[in-house]
Amino acid sequence: MSAFNDLKKRLADVHNLEMAGALLDWDQQTYMPRGGIGARAESRATISKLAHDLHTQSETARLLERAERESDFAPESDQSAMLRRARRDFDKATKLPAALVEETARVTALAQVEWAHARSEKDFQLFATWLEKILDIQRRTADALGFEDCRYDALLDQYEEGMTRARLDPIFEELKRETVPLVHAISANDGKVDDAILHRDYDEISQKTFAENVLRDCGFDWSRGRQDKSVHPFCTNFGQSDVRITTRYDSGIASALFGSLHEMGHGLYEQNIAPKFESTPLGGGVSLGVHESQSRLWENLVGRSREFWSHYFPQLQSAFPEQLKGENLDGFYRAINRAAPSPIRVEADEVTYNLHIILRYEIENELLEGRLAVADAPASWNARMQDYLGIEPTDDAQGILQDVHWSLGALGYFPTYSLGNILSVQLWEKALEDAPEIPAAIARGDFHLLLGWLRENVHQHGRKYPPVELIQRATGSELRVAPYADYLKSKFGAIYEL
Amino acid sequence: MSAFNDLKKRLADVHNLEMAGALLDWDQQTYMPRGGIGARAESRATISKLAHDLHTQSETARLLERAERESDFAPESDQSAMLRRARRDFDKATKLPAALVEETARVTALAQVEWAHARSEKDFQLFATWLEKILDIQRRTADALGFEDCRYDALLDQYEEGMTRARLDPIFEELKRETVPLVHAISANDGKVDDAILHRDYDEISQKTFAENVLRDCGFDWSRGRQDKSVHPFCTNFGQSDVRITTRYDSGIASALFGSLHEMGHGLYEQNIAPKFESTPLGGGVSLGVHESQSRLWENLVGRSREFWSHYFPQLQSAFPEQLKGENLDGFYRAINRAAPSPIRVEADEVTYNLHIILRYEIENELLEGRLAVADAPASWNARMQDYLGIEPTDDAQGILQDVHWSLGALGYFPTYSLGNILSVQLWEKALEDAPEIPAAIARGDFHLLLGWLRENVHQHGRKYPPVELIQRATGSELRVAPYADYLKSKFGAIYEL
Repeated sequence: MSAFNDLKKRLADVHNLEMAGALLDWDQQTYMPRGGIGARAESRATISKLAHDLHTQSETARLLERAERESDFAPESDQSAMLRRARRDFDKATKLPAALVEETARVTALAQVEWAHARSEKDFQLFATWLEKILDIQRRTADALGFEDCRYDALLDQYEEGMTRARLDPIFEELKRETVPLVHAISANDGKVDDAILHRDYDEISQKTFAENVLRDCGFDWSRGRQDKSVHPFCTNFGQSDVRITTRYDSGIASALFGSLHEMGHGLYEQNIAPKFESTPLGGGVSLGVHESQSRLWENLVGRSREFWSHYFPQLQSAFPEQLKGENLDGFYRAINRAAPSPIRVEADEVTYNLHIILRYEIENELLEGRLAVADAPASWNARMQDYLGIEPTDDAQGILQDVHWSLGALGYFPTYSLGNILSVQLWEKALEDAPEIPAAIARGDFHLLLGWLRENVHQHGRKYPPVELIQRATGSELRVAPYADYLKSKFGAIYEL
Repeated sequence: MSAFNDLKKRLADVHNLEMAGALLDWDQQTYMPRGGIGARAESRATISKLAHDLHTQSETARLLERAERESDFAPESDQSAMLRRARRDFDKATKLPAALVEETARVTALAQVEWAHARSEKDFQLFATWLEKILDIQRRTADALGFEDCRYDALLDQYEEGMTRARLDPIFEELKRETVPLVHAISANDGKVDDAILHRDYDEISQKTFAENVLRDCGFDWSRGRQDKSVHPFCTNFGQSDVRITTRYDSGIASALFGSLHEMGHGLYEQNIAPKFESTPLGGGVSLGVHESQSRLWENLVGRSREFWSHYFPQLQSAFPEQLKGENLDGFYRAINRAAPSPIRVEADEVTYNLHIILRYEIENELLEGRLAVADAPASWNARMQDYLGIEPTDDAQGILQDVHWSLGALGYFPTYSLGNILSVQLWEKALEDAPEIPAAIARGDFHLLLGWLRENVHQHGRKYPPVELIQRATGSELRVAPYADYLKSKFGAIYEL
């Protein structure tokens, strides 16, 4: 028992350090003055190195081994799950050399700035040498972590335990097969939906107030979270009771509103993990795919539903009486569900979204394997955009530079977005099977039933079950593309009268 | 050479960790949601413990000893100064047990919240048990650090190297002797100055914009700093190129404006330390007294001068045309220099200010020595306010609870405010002796000459010289009360026609 508690205390220290690192990152993306980057990169490097040191010291190994040896916990107990997680985390951490961990933190802190600069200059070449550095680091990371089939699997497993290219390729093939004809059919009927209503001049303060109220209704606890502005919206957290989401505003109504619902979905997951798991190896969301299922469920299944807006559209009209004069629910519902090929992933509709993911998945695989040269990546990007979506980005900012992830050193991360989409529909359908009143409650602005179901079946478990097991427990099935494809066909078939 | 460089690298890691700790603190005081405090306290405790561990490990001792042994640096070189500082810092750190460092961080993170709560409830008793805890921690800290004469000296030396109660008592006696009659004389002529002009309704946004422009003119580099709101204004920094100041707004014009100038004074010091000292033991301001001399110089010697407002009053009138219609420079100058006993230190005028300091100095000494019981402290506070300033606070929030410092575990800190006041005038007079054009330049809104002098004589040196030596080098004299007393008598004699 004592070794187990000592181990928990030690891992809590690692966790506390990592949370300080997460705050350094949050601050860098929200409030840090430009000049702070040099010292910030050093500070992040030191924190990463020390957290890694503390995690991988022989004392941790000793405590872990003793705790495992002495354990008489039931296999299904929290304690046993904690030991399994601690073992997995420790084994992964020890595979990474300390110098590589420190180098990664330093290079990515700087690369983020260089990416933002290159993006604002719309010039990929300004970022090219940084991408080279990052690819090199990622290759060494994959080699250190080890893999059976390909380097990419090692990276993917960091974000989605157990996921491999061999499992992913057929999923993405099926997605492509289902989506591309739908995109074409919708494009042919493009005139059926007009979203001009979204692009009037909506002032930022009123947008903010409206979104904050919606998030409060949904169950986001503002005493344990906050929202700020950043170039790229994200969610981070420092424990379950300090959850930070960010958004960005433009004059249209859709971007910040749906972005806020999206990040709130991540935030609700973190806020509703069982308190007993706080600062233990079972704290936090279990995988990025499961995390994304939460953000997409709230953004799309809830936030782009007719029920949701039957409650909120009158409130939105009160908040923006001029912009929405004479408009009605049906027109608004259709507008927020307009599907059309567009260059920016985060603004893509539900139908085209996954093609953006597949595109980057293919490119980052080729880059990692050296089959595509960094210098040729923008051309390859643009050619694929033409192939999959029939459009050509006007510049690199609208194309290959649009997303922050590579600068964060996060190759293997993108596929989890699509996994989240797929899973969001499976969870939604199971929730409605268990509680068919959910849509009616949403139409009254009441989200308790839905949040309760998610808390019970997903949130509270934290990292107790590996993602594959959690998905099986929550949905009664493995990950399946079909429900998601059916959902898209049914919803957009109706909207576009296909 | 190699031991010296390895030592620098190691101490830079300690510094990087401490900067992460400082960000945790800044965030707690500016943006952290209420619910974040539990995890935040743990995170701060972990960072403090690990920074202390790293600093005091035998490897640091070994590197320090080798670097000292191998050193053939000239005694006046930066390197020799760095080794002396590193030795002093190391010896101090090793005296403090790790558990005490961790306990201090955790207790003070929580105590800050309890203090804020007690203050908002205006009830000292809600904070009393926390003050007991903190006094206990401070006594153990003093005992661990060691002292010759009294525990208070050990605490004082943390903030003002070399300062003792034996040196401080006569300084404070002289200050009281010079100030109290001046307060009485001014009170008798209170009708001479009316500051109603400051208490009209000045909107926050315009106040913010005006202050930001002034700070830019003064030389505050906004690309290497920022300003936010907090309950208690402060300045912190994460290196020389990320300097954070905070302020608070009320409807009057004085509080945020002079508060901003004050915190900017701290910020300019940090921004102008020689870059070569970044993340070494010579980085950062040398003592709190010297730091406060910078904030008070900009707030009072510059910011409450006629020259300054001869340039800015017309701009202020443009920014607030309604509030300042028909007003003139002379009336404004007199209003911002109104001197009258008031309960809140941070809003006190230059004449009464030090009496607030002396009051808390006396009380914290008595508390530390157990001559005053915590339960009796508010009554003792109020009685002294009556004695020194002739006023009675209406409640604890206006009295003993007004300042955050005790909750931070910062006993021995307060005297440095008065040391800063005294020094600010010595520096100002020396600057004017060297560059008599300074006031004329200020009247043109040109601060290069003054900032250049301060950079040259104070800022750039960082912690290279101990405070006593820095003061001697910069002013050609030791710390002396007389110039400060003369300045007050002359300035306020004129304003109040004494």
